[in-house]
Amino acid sequence: MSETIQDETIRPGEIAVGLDPAQPYDAGLSFIGHIRTPWGVRGQCPRQGDRTAGPECSIVVDPLWHRALEGIEYWPELQILYWMNEARRDLVIQVATGKQPQGTFAMRSPVRPNPIASSVVTLLRVEAGTLIVRGLDCLDGTPLLDIKAHFGELYP
Amino acid sequence: MSETIQDETIRPGEIAVGLDPAQPYDAGLSFIGHIRTPWGVRGQCPRQGDRTAGPECSIVVDPLWHRALEGIEYWPELQILYWMNEARRDLVIQVATGKQPQGTFAMRSPVRPNPIASSVVTLLRVEAGTLIVRGLDCLDGTPLLDIKAHFGELYP
Repeated sequence: MSETIQDETIRPGEIAVGLDPAQPYDAGLSFIGHIRTPWGVRGQCPRQGDRTAGPECSIVVDPLWHRALEGIEYWPELQILYWMNEARRDLVIQVATGKQPQGTFAMRSPVRPNPIASSVVTLLRVEAGTLIVRGLDCLDGTPLLDIKAHFGELYP
Repeated sequence: MSETIQDETIRPGEIAVGLDPAQPYDAGLSFIGHIRTPWGVRGQCPRQGDRTAGPECSIVVDPLWHRALEGIEYWPELQILYWMNEARRDLVIQVATGKQPQGTFAMRSPVRPNPIASSVVTLLRVEAGTLIVRGLDCLDGTPLLDIKAHFGELYP
């Protein structure tokens, strides 16, 4: 989920569509907090989070939403949605390092029409509105969109 | 994922926060297609999609993004993100039918600050920019946000 693709760069074989900058968005998102990780630049991020051996990361929830965390400690795993705010949004064909060109929807690259990332994490503990978890792979400071109970292990 | 909660209704025990309608959104979403299902009203939707025995549903991708589907047939399962456009966004404590009040982030209810749903589906076939899948539980006409390769079974 953490390809090293920088905004506005395009690689041989990649294809962008023309997005109209005057076209209004269809819906709006409100950031509900942010994520703290050890990785300050994209090249440092792991390719995929590790729920068992990855470092502890913090999901810092804005005070407005603290009460929405009630009962969260019941879930050993959570699904986290976050916003990959550095990614371009107009590529339909992408070239990951060492791979053939692929369609954006056949990948998990951050470059996509709506750059929403989804990761499943292990919840270690809750500290005053902050979740301490393992399994993330994103940049430090990444905006938080959602936290959901993850049923995968309990109700597969 | 399909609680019968209608916009603007609130149940005993539920708690809403005051959202400022003048506050601008932090980011914008573009719908990239829509989902066709057999369910026209929320009460008909199953509580959770069934990847094995659920009905065939269609994910209709807008022509602008058709090339982004290249290679998608490689993945037996896909993660689908969609927008629950009928859900209110201001509840921090919710009461599901027959349950005690719980925090929004400990649930998968469509009522949440950013009403993005995530489902894993089985891909049956691709027909000219439309994916035929099993495993969805949403309303007919639901706006589509993203399609991602799902690594769950192949790289658990």
